[in-house]
Amino acid sequence: MACVHKSFVVQTNAHNEVIDITPTVEDLLATSGVKQGQCTVYTPHATAAITINENADPNIGVDLIAALKKCVVEHDNWLHDRIDNNAAAHIKAAIIGPSVTIPINKGKLTLGTWQNLFLCEFDGPRQRRQVLVSILS
Amino acid sequence: MACVHKSFVVQTNAHNEVIDITPTVEDLLATSGVKQGQCTVYTPHATAAITINENADPNIGVDLIAALKKCVVEHDNWLHDRIDNNAAAHIKAAIIGPSVTIPINKGKLTLGTWQNLFLCEFDGPRQRRQVLVSILS
Amino acid sequence: MACVHKSFVVQTNAHNEVIDITPTVEDLLATSGVKQGQCTVYTPHATAAITINENADPNIGVDLIAALKKCVVEHDNWLHDRIDNNAAAHIKAAIIGPSVTIPINKGKLTLGTWQNLFLCEFDGPRQRRQVLVSILS
Repeated sequence: MACVHKSFVVQTNAHNEVIDITPTVEDLLATSGVKQGQCTVYTPHATAAITINENADPNIGVDLIAALKKCVVEHDNWLHDRIDNNAAAHIKAAIIGPSVTIPINKGKLTLGTWQNLFLCEFDGPRQRRQVLVSILS
Repeated sequence: MACVHKSFVVQTNAHNEVIDITPTVEDLLATSGVKQGQCTVYTPHATAAITINENADPNIGVDLIAALKKCVVEHDNWLHDRIDNNAAAHIKAAIIGPSVTIPINKGKLTLGTWQNLFLCEFDGPRQRRQVLVSILS
Repeated sequence: MACVHKSFVVQTNAHNEVIDITPTVEDLLATSGVKQGQCTVYTPHATAAITINENADPNIGVDLIAALKKCVVEHDNWLHDRIDNNAAAHIKAAIIGPSVTIPINKGKLTLGTWQNLFLCEFDGPRQRRQVLVSILS
């Protein structure tokens, strides 16, 4: 068994944004040649996150951002806002989490029909959000 | 080292429901014969999720559903409701997440005394919710 | 490829607390000698969780606790409170989750500049919170 790490960079364009990264992850998986194993997708940022959700309707991402904004109100007397003014982004990142792990079967991610992989930006726009793709074969 | 994938189907019976899947996952682990490794439990659906929590009191699941309902109000002007009317289910699935990874030691999941594995249904009832069990040995 | 499990114990000192466990996890990784792989950090408790977030400002943890307290109000007629009086802790643990998986590169966790690993205590203080570190090489 082997472990291959790959990575790519995403440019984000809004303060809060949900960006489909499935095609890039699937391309990296295809070039790895791995047929059976597990894929961990990880973002090394404290104000971004990785999630899996529906791909067909782009409003799913809009709704997720709106829901998190209701749960974690911006500038709600957060202490960290005195330093960086982005406490809500950190809290949202902790709630969604920095990684997901997906089985690989027959060279493909076992995503369901309605599942794609998304980078969640909570403190953008940023020019370089990194995504690591770690493939265990 | 090897990677074995197994799967099973769960029927859900309510719109929101938390169902203990620990016995089935443990049976699949036992039949795999793996003694040391990691187990990823993954659901390939965008309106369901996997979580770990207490097993002894079934009201833990009732409380989790009630708490998520307060955080993510049904039909709260979500855009996706215009298409599928299940936006809240998608948001809850993103908050809880589609997978968990658990170490395997001496042929057993290293679940704590008060931990079991649960499938969270947020848009049921459904006849066939799939659960994938990916075992790295 | 091999799978090594290690563990350690954390004493918590408050009812809700976020404790940096990065140095201990990095020490265990260093003693494992693993250079390339994946590290899963898992807590086998139903009222604690593992998260990744900023390390520089300790108020990030204070804000996360405050935000979760707003989302999941203590003693909000939770059914489990009749048994253990700690339902909110269980719900918070389910939202944050019991584990994270991080790629290992060149013998180091691929944590970002602003990322550290934290144990979240939601029902403390407790003398012995266990953390499992499962290293796949």
